[in-house]
Amino acid sequence: MKKVITISREFGSGGREFARRLADKLEIAYYDREIITELAKRTNLAEGYINSLNEQRPAPLFPITIGNTISPVMDAMWTQHNNIFIEQTNLLKELAGKSDCVIVGRCADHILADFKPLRIRLYADMNSRIQRCKVRENQGEALSDREYKQKINEIDKGRAKYYQFYTGKRWDDELNYDMLINTTGKDIKKLAEYFAQILK
Amino acid sequence: MKKVITISREFGSGGREFARRLADKLEIAYYDREIITELAKRTNLAEGYINSLNEQRPAPLFPITIGNTISPVMDAMWTQHNNIFIEQTNLLKELAGKSDCVIVGRCADHILADFKPLRIRLYADMNSRIQRCKVRENQGEALSDREYKQKINEIDKGRAKYYQFYTGKRWDDELNYDMLINTTGKDIKKLAEYFAQILK
Repeated sequence: MKKVITISREFGSGGREFARRLADKLEIAYYDREIITELAKRTNLAEGYINSLNEQRPAPLFPITIGNTISPVMDAMWTQHNNIFIEQTNLLKELAGKSDCVIVGRCADHILADFKPLRIRLYADMNSRIQRCKVRENQGEALSDREYKQKINEIDKGRAKYYQFYTGKRWDDELNYDMLINTTGKDIKKLAEYFAQILK
Repeated sequence: MKKVITISREFGSGGREFARRLADKLEIAYYDREIITELAKRTNLAEGYINSLNEQRPAPLFPITIGNTISPVMDAMWTQHNNIFIEQTNLLKELAGKSDCVIVGRCADHILADFKPLRIRLYADMNSRIQRCKVRENQGEALSDREYKQKINEIDKGRAKYYQFYTGKRWDDELNYDMLINTTGKDIKKLAEYFAQILK
């Protein structure tokens, strides 16, 4: 079966852990933060800045012309965001071309369409996502359930906008994926082991 | 892993074939039309009539009282529909209690919640569903693509209403399932073989 696997995931659904464990079980490459590091090298931009762009729509969807004059600041941001996306596109294709791999987020399902990836999406109910956030959260950040819910919704909204902007498709449209997995109350480790069996 | 498997499916997504092949590979029972036959026996009603009820909401969602008088005809239909559903509920629980099995449709994911079934839903894009309908259609019925689309939408609408009525949940809500599989352009036989591997 195909060995380029893309993982789209709702925030708090355990997608990153699933992807890492799946790659581990399949003994293939796993790309997530590594992409940011490489992009930072290639673009001479800070990793934190590049990472933040993956969870938002490029800035100027409000008018970039003011009184028929293009705002030079907005225009520069716009260009930079798009350049980073192009660089990321090239990088993802390089990686997928090099070896079998699992890639998290980054519109990889769309960008790597030519590789006919297995496009998996993970989701879970809100309560389960809040619990996962709590478990993995730094001790320092103690949010209330309501605050977690707000944070989760905000991050997903950003991811959805980013996806919609660069692919023209809805992030949560099941037709953009081959398989959707509900992680509510599930053990991610076991889940990854099960799926690794059919993907071997 | 669990061995009560429920299959919800969009019309034309290949759900029935998938379920049958999956049960076959897993060497466990497969229930679909058999349920109708057994219900017909138990209720002394025609199989065709019972089958039609699975794809529609029980009749009287328009007022069953007219001028404060309950319409006896509507009331009788209402009672009959609900009795059949109750009989079906009992039957599904009997079957699931008896042995490992795959059950198609019939709100089985909801009814058999106590059995903690693996709840799978199959879906596909419209074009793929139309093509599947064409292939399996009787030679006699040659519909245009537009007519197929209309038929598919009508049947799914009926299934959704039936599900919503008896479960209080949305038929297409991904949170009601453990796994969703996109069958667009896929070979159902191979798909069933893959999944049988992890469910063995």
